[in-house]
Amino acid sequence: MTTTVRTRVAIVGAGPAGLLLSHLLAAAGIGSIVIDRRERDEIERTVRAGILEQGTVDLLVSSDASTRVLADGHRHDGIELRFDGAGHRFDFPALTGRSVWLYPQHEVLTDLIAARLADGQDLRFGVTATAVRDAASSRPTVVAVDADGAELEIEAEVVVGADGSHGVVRKTVSPTGGHFREYPFAWFGILCEARPSNDVLVYSSADAGFALISQRSESVQRMYFQCEPDTDPAAMSDVQIWAELRKRTPGMRLNEGPIIRRDVLRFRSFVAHELRRGRTVLVGDAAHTVPPTGAKGMNLAVADVVLLDRAIRALLLDGDEGPLDRFPEVAARRIWKAQHFSSWMTNLLHTAPDATDFDRRRRQGELHMLTGSESGRRYLAEAYTGWPFDTAL
Amino acid sequence: MTTTVRTRVAIVGAGPAGLLLSHLLAAAGIGSIVIDRRERDEIERTVRAGILEQGTVDLLVSSDASTRVLADGHRHDGIELRFDGAGHRFDFPALTGRSVWLYPQHEVLTDLIAARLADGQDLRFGVTATAVRDAASSRPTVVAVDADGAELEIEAEVVVGADGSHGVVRKTVSPTGGHFREYPFAWFGILCEARPSNDVLVYSSADAGFALISQRSESVQRMYFQCEPDTDPAAMSDVQIWAELRKRTPGMRLNEGPIIRRDVLRFRSFVAHELRRGRTVLVGDAAHTVPPTGAKGMNLAVADVVLLDRAIRALLLDGDEGPLDRFPEVAARRIWKAQHFSSWMTNLLHTAPDATDFDRRRRQGELHMLTGSESGRRYLAEAYTGWPFDTAL
Repeated sequence: MTTTVRTRVAIVGAGPAGLLLSHLLAAAGIGSIVIDRRERDEIERTVRAGILEQGTVDLLVSSDASTRVLADGHRHDGIELRFDGAGHRFDFPALTGRSVWLYPQHEVLTDLIAARLADGQDLRFGVTATAVRDAASSRPTVVAVDADGAELEIEAEVVVGADGSHGVVRKTVSPTGGHFREYPFAWFGILCEARPSNDVLVYSSADAGFALISQRSESVQRMYFQCEPDTDPAAMSDVQIWAELRKRTPGMRLNEGPIIRRDVLRFRSFVAHELRRGRTVLVGDAAHTVPPTGAKGMNLAVADVVLLDRAIRALLLDGDEGPLDRFPEVAARRIWKAQHFSSWMTNLLHTAPDATDFDRRRRQGELHMLTGSESGRRYLAEAYTGWPFDTAL
Repeated sequence: MTTTVRTRVAIVGAGPAGLLLSHLLAAAGIGSIVIDRRERDEIERTVRAGILEQGTVDLLVSSDASTRVLADGHRHDGIELRFDGAGHRFDFPALTGRSVWLYPQHEVLTDLIAARLADGQDLRFGVTATAVRDAASSRPTVVAVDADGAELEIEAEVVVGADGSHGVVRKTVSPTGGHFREYPFAWFGILCEARPSNDVLVYSSADAGFALISQRSESVQRMYFQCEPDTDPAAMSDVQIWAELRKRTPGMRLNEGPIIRRDVLRFRSFVAHELRRGRTVLVGDAAHTVPPTGAKGMNLAVADVVLLDRAIRALLLDGDEGPLDRFPEVAARRIWKAQHFSSWMTNLLHTAPDATDFDRRRRQGELHMLTGSESGRRYLAEAYTGWPFDTAL
């Protein structure tokens, strides 16, 4: 027994991209159905990092998607880069007039879900997309199955794949996969009960490798250190973990405390070969993934959505196909800048296992050249706090 | 029969570093002997490229080493970066308040030789250093042989190796060699009789590879294009050469003309493990070589010399060994910044033969991110026009 429903825009994935898109479209009077294979509880409880660009925060607030970000988020007026045992502050307001906000992704999702439900959004959890039919036609259809095994077909005018890096929509839109780069290291991450060691994120590069000292709240901190990709998180003792973190942050005082979570994050750079097939479009992690070093993941998804919202409005309100046609090319410009920035930050701070002596010294030279130049610091800060959204299609 | 002479500073190599050092030392009343295995005529006639940083020009003028640079050199108020068929001007005066000067290296050498000889410098051509004896002692000695096979020993208080990347002094100072990186491409260079195609250097990156369109005079131009390292310069016809240059400069009009010279330049990045052994010190190409993309070679030699001049004056005028002790560490800071800059410019503009699709797209993203940001352009321009000389030891 298959149920068929109709909507203007079918959105697969209730992550930041899918939920925000439904929110922006609704403000323009365009209805959508959002489905996600996960239950609401899982989405809201999966703890994820989150550094929001100034533009992302401004959009969440101005669109009434979240006002809590300003109350419960933490404005960070910079980052600290450490090497050779010394810290170098990148003062974002002084360099760019902007800041970033620490506000974890699951908090953004909690706010977005609440806002969408309050607005009467058709938002269906536990519904798994299995295929997109007639993707290139003017009536693309999402085929899905709910938790009870009942089939659902969503006939739409536009289908949006916002279902992450393993979603089904990407296979339809970009069957050949994408451009990618693997990294020969991963991050060992911990959550610990301790007071913050710094007021902003500390990116530390040492001979022993990279560490990121980030914050979660006044009493819980998130820290990472570079490790081999096949590291077993259970194989290290707490004592070993703190020793590794200290080795990677010479000259810095780390506030330590009980480790309450540990995990290993592997990452790669990826951009789908195709971002659009007819009326079916990819956004967010379905379109691209970046290494976490530049904190670009969620922000890049938001930038996709800002642009796609314009393209869908032109199509569905004005009957103008042009903006959707141009969406892939325009979106790709920012995506590849963000890919470069993320890749650059990663290479700048990590010690590659096959690095030669020349590579290591060259990298030290780069750290000196960058931190020693106000324009270098500003160039990095502009990217970190976020380029203006593209809206011209 | 061995002749022994004494001097305060024995300088091996009459290139820009060696000659400029003797010039600066003489101004402080410190005598030196400069030897070079080449004859004067060969030094002055070996055509070499030359982009001088603003600080290099200022020093040549203020030290009376060359005033001709201002009359016969050409001030370049920027460079042009080309990709995707469009040019992007980096306006150096607007970005940094500084410029660079096109003034070939052999012209600098002609001026320096004339200035030194007019000043009564003991400058000996056709004299080949064969060893440095007692390098670490307070009386290091250069052993050399002249064109007639007569032996010469130069007893000095300081020995300076300014004899280039294959010189004998490096073996004494840094017997283990150095840090290096090879590049999987070379430059095919031509001199041609044509009018300039642009008023500043054009760095062009295209799918076919990199090209550099530079100038020599109103009627002779120097152009390069990326080629395989083992390319035989004689194997390409003029028609093929122009076709390659045009493929690498889409959207640009090249002024063509008879090709009067052609060569293949291989290059690598290199920094000697040790820059000093006791009273024997390396500067310029003897200490480091850079790929030519960032135009840093001669300028980095000049920066070494500015710093070493201070160290030698402290030692020989004030009896203070400290600055010479600290010379390697302080010099290395600029050397590695310049190595990074040269390596960055090279990677930014060349297509590596093993580049993946991801690498190529990432590089396009970087070109957009860089040229689209005033602070990015300024960061590059600061490095290209030259950081201030370090003088504190």
